[in-house]
Amino acid sequence: MTINYNLAVSTSKPWTLFKLLLKWRGSIWKAVVLELAVWLVLYGILSVIYRTALNPGQQRTFERIVQYCDSRLSYIPLNFMLGFFVTAVVNRWTYLYQIIGFIDNIGLMAAEYVRGRTEQARMYRRNIVRYCELAQVLVFRDISMRTRRRFPTLDTVVAAGFMMPHEKERYDEIQYKYSKYWVPFQWAFSLTYEARKKGLIESDYYQVVVQDEIKKFRTGLAWICNYDWVPIPIMYPQLVCLAVHTYFLVCLLARQYIVSEHADNKTEIDLYFPIMSTLQFIFYMGWMKVAEAMLNPFGEDDDDFECNALIDRNITMVLMMVDQGYDRAPDLKRDDFWD
Amino acid sequence: MTINYNLAVSTSKPWTLFKLLLKWRGSIWKAVVLELAVWLVLYGILSVIYRTALNPGQQRTFERIVQYCDSRLSYIPLNFMLGFFVTAVVNRWTYLYQIIGFIDNIGLMAAEYVRGRTEQARMYRRNIVRYCELAQVLVFRDISMRTRRRFPTLDTVVAAGFMMPHEKERYDEIQYKYSKYWVPFQWAFSLTYEARKKGLIESDYYQVVVQDEIKKFRTGLAWICNYDWVPIPIMYPQLVCLAVHTYFLVCLLARQYIVSEHADNKTEIDLYFPIMSTLQFIFYMGWMKVAEAMLNPFGEDDDDFECNALIDRNITMVLMMVDQGYDRAPDLKRDDFWD
Amino acid sequence: MTINYNLAVSTSKPWTLFKLLLKWRGSIWKAVVLELAVWLVLYGILSVIYRTALNPGQQRTFERIVQYCDSRLSYIPLNFMLGFFVTAVVNRWTYLYQIIGFIDNIGLMAAEYVRGRTEQARMYRRNIVRYCELAQVLVFRDISMRTRRRFPTLDTVVAAGFMMPHEKERYDEIQYKYSKYWVPFQWAFSLTYEARKKGLIESDYYQVVVQDEIKKFRTGLAWICNYDWVPIPIMYPQLVCLAVHTYFLVCLLARQYIVSEHADNKTEIDLYFPIMSTLQFIFYMGWMKVAEAMLNPFGEDDDDFECNALIDRNITMVLMMVDQGYDRAPDLKRDDFWD
Amino acid sequence: MTINYNLAVSTSKPWTLFKLLLKWRGSIWKAVVLELAVWLVLYGILSVIYRTALNPGQQRTFERIVQYCDSRLSYIPLNFMLGFFVTAVVNRWTYLYQIIGFIDNIGLMAAEYVRGRTEQARMYRRNIVRYCELAQVLVFRDISMRTRRRFPTLDTVVAAGFMMPHEKERYDEIQYKYSKYWVPFQWAFSLTYEARKKGLIESDYYQVVVQDEIKKFRTGLAWICNYDWVPIPIMYPQLVCLAVHTYFLVCLLARQYIVSEHADNKTEIDLYFPIMSTLQFIFYMGWMKVAEAMLNPFGEDDDDFECNALIDRNITMVLMMVDQGYDRAPDLKRDDFWD
Amino acid sequence: MTINYNLAVSTSKPWTLFKLLLKWRGSIWKAVVLELAVWLVLYGILSVIYRTALNPGQQRTFERIVQYCDSRLSYIPLNFMLGFFVTAVVNRWTYLYQIIGFIDNIGLMAAEYVRGRTEQARMYRRNIVRYCELAQVLVFRDISMRTRRRFPTLDTVVAAGFMMPHEKERYDEIQYKYSKYWVPFQWAFSLTYEARKKGLIESDYYQVVVQDEIKKFRTGLAWICNYDWVPIPIMYPQLVCLAVHTYFLVCLLARQYIVSEHADNKTEIDLYFPIMSTLQFIFYMGWMKVAEAMLNPFGEDDDDFECNALIDRNITMVLMMVDQGYDRAPDLKRDDFWD
Repeated sequence: MTINYNLAVSTSKPWTLFKLLLKWRGSIWKAVVLELAVWLVLYGILSVIYRTALNPGQQRTFERIVQYCDSRLSYIPLNFMLGFFVTAVVNRWTYLYQIIGFIDNIGLMAAEYVRGRTEQARMYRRNIVRYCELAQVLVFRDISMRTRRRFPTLDTVVAAGFMMPHEKERYDEIQYKYSKYWVPFQWAFSLTYEARKKGLIESDYYQVVVQDEIKKFRTGLAWICNYDWVPIPIMYPQLVCLAVHTYFLVCLLARQYIVSEHADNKTEIDLYFPIMSTLQFIFYMGWMKVAEAMLNPFGEDDDDFECNALIDRNITMVLMMVDQGYDRAPDLKRDDFWD
Repeated sequence: MTINYNLAVSTSKPWTLFKLLLKWRGSIWKAVVLELAVWLVLYGILSVIYRTALNPGQQRTFERIVQYCDSRLSYIPLNFMLGFFVTAVVNRWTYLYQIIGFIDNIGLMAAEYVRGRTEQARMYRRNIVRYCELAQVLVFRDISMRTRRRFPTLDTVVAAGFMMPHEKERYDEIQYKYSKYWVPFQWAFSLTYEARKKGLIESDYYQVVVQDEIKKFRTGLAWICNYDWVPIPIMYPQLVCLAVHTYFLVCLLARQYIVSEHADNKTEIDLYFPIMSTLQFIFYMGWMKVAEAMLNPFGEDDDDFECNALIDRNITMVLMMVDQGYDRAPDLKRDDFWD
Repeated sequence: MTINYNLAVSTSKPWTLFKLLLKWRGSIWKAVVLELAVWLVLYGILSVIYRTALNPGQQRTFERIVQYCDSRLSYIPLNFMLGFFVTAVVNRWTYLYQIIGFIDNIGLMAAEYVRGRTEQARMYRRNIVRYCELAQVLVFRDISMRTRRRFPTLDTVVAAGFMMPHEKERYDEIQYKYSKYWVPFQWAFSLTYEARKKGLIESDYYQVVVQDEIKKFRTGLAWICNYDWVPIPIMYPQLVCLAVHTYFLVCLLARQYIVSEHADNKTEIDLYFPIMSTLQFIFYMGWMKVAEAMLNPFGEDDDDFECNALIDRNITMVLMMVDQGYDRAPDLKRDDFWD
Repeated sequence: MTINYNLAVSTSKPWTLFKLLLKWRGSIWKAVVLELAVWLVLYGILSVIYRTALNPGQQRTFERIVQYCDSRLSYIPLNFMLGFFVTAVVNRWTYLYQIIGFIDNIGLMAAEYVRGRTEQARMYRRNIVRYCELAQVLVFRDISMRTRRRFPTLDTVVAAGFMMPHEKERYDEIQYKYSKYWVPFQWAFSLTYEARKKGLIESDYYQVVVQDEIKKFRTGLAWICNYDWVPIPIMYPQLVCLAVHTYFLVCLLARQYIVSEHADNKTEIDLYFPIMSTLQFIFYMGWMKVAEAMLNPFGEDDDDFECNALIDRNITMVLMMVDQGYDRAPDLKRDDFWD
Repeated sequence: MTINYNLAVSTSKPWTLFKLLLKWRGSIWKAVVLELAVWLVLYGILSVIYRTALNPGQQRTFERIVQYCDSRLSYIPLNFMLGFFVTAVVNRWTYLYQIIGFIDNIGLMAAEYVRGRTEQARMYRRNIVRYCELAQVLVFRDISMRTRRRFPTLDTVVAAGFMMPHEKERYDEIQYKYSKYWVPFQWAFSLTYEARKKGLIESDYYQVVVQDEIKKFRTGLAWICNYDWVPIPIMYPQLVCLAVHTYFLVCLLARQYIVSEHADNKTEIDLYFPIMSTLQFIFYMGWMKVAEAMLNPFGEDDDDFECNALIDRNITMVLMMVDQGYDRAPDLKRDDFWD
């Protein structure tokens, strides 16, 4: 579920921070806790070995390796990579959200232009919008794990009422090896055309207005699929992941406290716990987790898009619009500002 | 209230700065003053403890901790995080402003295409635009605290004249668990269609022009809601907030003046007041405050969008457009440039 | 006036630089010269005091303060702040220029679709486009100082011929506390509708084409006003201004030449004039001036938009288009490429 | 083939990394392995020469050269160049993908608006969409090596059924030295017009809707060609490539282990293998490879666009849409949500 | 001429680099060679003076100046300035290319909607598209030096066939002090309207489609002019140019090899040739040259837009489209995929 914190940050106060930080779901804490634990354990093991198991000569060598690594950590350009990569990922994420498919305009246009209070007219309105929503369900089944789990088979889609059995038959007739999510859209277009021919839509021009909204909705969903087909080249996330993890792998050595009196790189003070490196771990690893969480927002991370909730909202809203909302403007009266 | 400083910066002069800096409302001074005070007090306490309460051995340890922290402060990548995060937030803020809903075009189109000087025609024009503005009020009530405070209940909206009692009844009839801000838009669409059927709008094509402006306005408001539903994943602001605050928490230690004669890291001179760190605090904390203030611009910060003022402007302007402004072009005369 | 240098840089040559650098108007030299002079004078005063007025003990203290400041200058993150802030400002500036209002398309469409060689037809065409330009004048009076100075009162607008006296009366009838720049647009829309009713425009569809161009022009100008109402939150420019100025304030101390033989931080050589710091001052202060000049491009900086020139160009071009340019295509002949 | 890893990253888990890193095709490993091998061999040779072939005096000189180079490596600004260049390239790559040409909307519109179940109507529908796809094949032959290999001559295009022999004749009649990919589009436009004249398309307005989709598709493909004609100026990729390679060329010297006891820059410890420099090599070279792979996505890199698969998908889908999908909406029934 | 290297980089191979680097035209080598030569000569002269002409005392002073400069070079923030400035310039360049004017859609629409095989119809089609191309020629004459050289006077435009003598007369009649490139567009619009009145265009709606394409083309060209009028404020490129050149001016001193035995800053080894500074010069100066080349892409740099080639391509293609391509779709036949 998306984590909503807008209320908490709506007004900037000194304690705004703490309200934000105390959240757990979707938080940075939850994202890095496991990695951090593993890293600290490994750090501890190395530390114990260095302090107790090694003889002075081995300690010497160990200390030199530490010095060698520490002074060369800057070779790994984490800052720049993370900064630019996260920017690219945030842009993609924002775009995906914009085309994810809010069906409102289809509902409003269908309700405005497909006229009539007969049962037939109602069926036209309801089916046009239901087919659009059905297509969204079909697309989400392919890309979102949560929706797939909710609708493991087409029969569950039928059972949930998004599709009717005779529609499923027609759907199955189409033999086609790629995704068939466009089929319900074609049905919706056909119904629009029929409604025009039957006079339920009273002008060619109006018909095109309705068809246009369906087309926009469809094009958005099609691009969701297209972006699923061609993600950011794998090399780029690989590179960033690898850089962050390698950096902290090297840190396991490079950030050890050096305690020998005669070592050049003796640490100023021996605190046993690598407090500053832990902070660094949280910030860099957390930054990478931001990218990881936004790279594919159709998964099951706390902050991924809630496809199932969107489906429910869309079908409920759109049926209400074309049915209860159809042609029910209040009576015309003089408003309160009438001079 | 948004702080306007355009006049002050319209022409770049050396003293432009000072005009800007002397503002208090919405200023960086106001944003960081409390945090800075707390930080300085804590710094002072630590400083006094170090100088007076510790014995030489403890001072030694303290000084080493200071040295340890100071040399590792660069582990926290504030610059990059703030730079990229603020950029992402500024982009989002700009986009939100662009869709916040200026109703002008609806007013102008309704006044141009819904014809007639009869009372009925006036009512059509006034109601179409009022319903759009009503929808904006409903949306702002959900996302802006100031508007919520102004209109705590639907009855206050009715009392203010944006909605009439018989409209509220119709509105309440709709049973729907999500936001119902689209209902007035559907009324507006219905009225447009009716106006066309009654001949007040003289062409299908004109009707679509009016409907199109309403649709654009609605789509903008819908996205305001959608962005409220799915903010930037919480991890990202958490990360940045945490980094800035942790940095200065560590600074409390790391930036202490070291006064022992024999300390390696004895500060060049003992000024008691951490002048340079204070500057750094102002700049980094202020930079973060910029992000915090822009993250949700519907709150009550000095610089947040003035939703209430926008509502007032919209309703006043739009009623004037469709009423006093209706079909009142001046008489045609030869202009002064006529050859 | 905008400074044009496109010709100078159209082809990249080694001496391209010098052509650019020799300009004074709008130049970086002009932008920083005053600040630099003040800074150098202050620097000189401090330098003289240090070298002549202080006794050895005071010099010692002074030198330590210098050392203290110099080693902590990096606390102020000028690079990142300026880089990201200037990028945000450049984007905004570019957008503002794109919507500033070039009237060409209105002229061309009015000339194509409002037909007839009668005086009435000419008046329709001329008035439609003049009203649009009048609206631009009204908007520019509110936001641009130069235009305000050119048209201090509405009467001067009338005197200049953009508005006629009977139009001003009609304009003044509208009682409205906000900006009334939309009134002439509404007149233009009304004239378009009338022209359609009188058959000067021969199709509903053509009428909408003309109306659409007017609407685009109006929407651009409206956003100019909207952006004037809600600038970038004041905190952000404050922050950057403050950072740059504070930095160089600290530099007054931190960059003094240290001349005592026994000082740790004795400068390598005593050049008296702080040559490198001067360069730094020019670059950072100049970079900030770029942002300052572009933050509000409607002022009187050398490089601000030339609103007055734009008004003159628009009114001249558009009257020529609808009058002399009306329906005067050359005779049809076979062109030279005719096979 | 594009490498799909969306499933692997859909939910962020600690081991997400390892799933990503274990891929070989399109991976960073594959991208840098050869360069890294060459670099390591050269490094080894230099290392052996230094340790064994040089006499002490020569070693001395070598060590000084190493020191000289190492302390000046930061002169080469890899971080900034790569960060900004990769951002520019990613933006271009994203844009190219968006206009690459998904034909779905043409199919849907042709199926909705070109009416009739006669053979003639079918032929109109099929030919309109086939001509669009043919144009895509012609464009891809010019810019994608894989498509060129699949269709080395026009005759192979004919053989594959995208073009018919009598169409090829007509195509060859046009004598034109530039690319002729627009010819099939003109055929498609002509067919649309004819279909309107014959009444298969029942309204001017519908005809324009179909024509508009074809125009959008064509414009996208035209820009693919235009961007092929004018790439990012060669200087920019040259600069970045050169910087990365020069950097590591200098590193061959600068990163040698210094083993002489008396050398100032004696390495802390002699590990023989340049472990940290190897990591740096992987990250920087890999980052550049990301840019290189995305600079021209129509080549044969693992992650380049799959033009051939797109052609197959398009032709299959679009013929199915206009044929099997034509006017086959399921029977109207009450849906399950019917109250 | 634009340098095309897409083929070379289409597939990423280790030797891709070398193919890129071996190009000379438009290359980084060509861009910096002259500046580099001058810089090296000045460096050599200074070096010779220091080594031979100065007495030990002067050498001492010289060495201190070198040390002073070298340790303060970082005051000049080249990295950030170049990174952000080049990004801004690349964005502008990309935008300019997108609106430069590809005439294809005008040709296709004119050929589809202006019907008839009479000579009159042909003349309408040919003249409409020729006038658009003529306008492009007029615009390019104003902004591109190459096009200006090709068409130094209007008579040369007439001689080349883009304009006919009787059209030039009509053109010269218009007395107007600004650019008159919009005149041919107005002719094109007039012809479109006439064609509609004569029934060559068979629907108001079709007429608007043609007019719309012309308008888009015109608006693009108008913005080319507008951006020529208001470039990026001169201060910004001045700043960047100045920073780069000043940096390397200081480097002439700061990067001298110090050879005195007793100098603190004695260089590790005396290589005579400043190899690392040369590399730095190439990269920074080259980066600036990228910006310089893209700042005004209408000049005569190797990589500037080829306006003349575009004019030739446009006129050839568009005449072919409206003439040979008019209404010549192949006969309808069953395609090969017919089931």
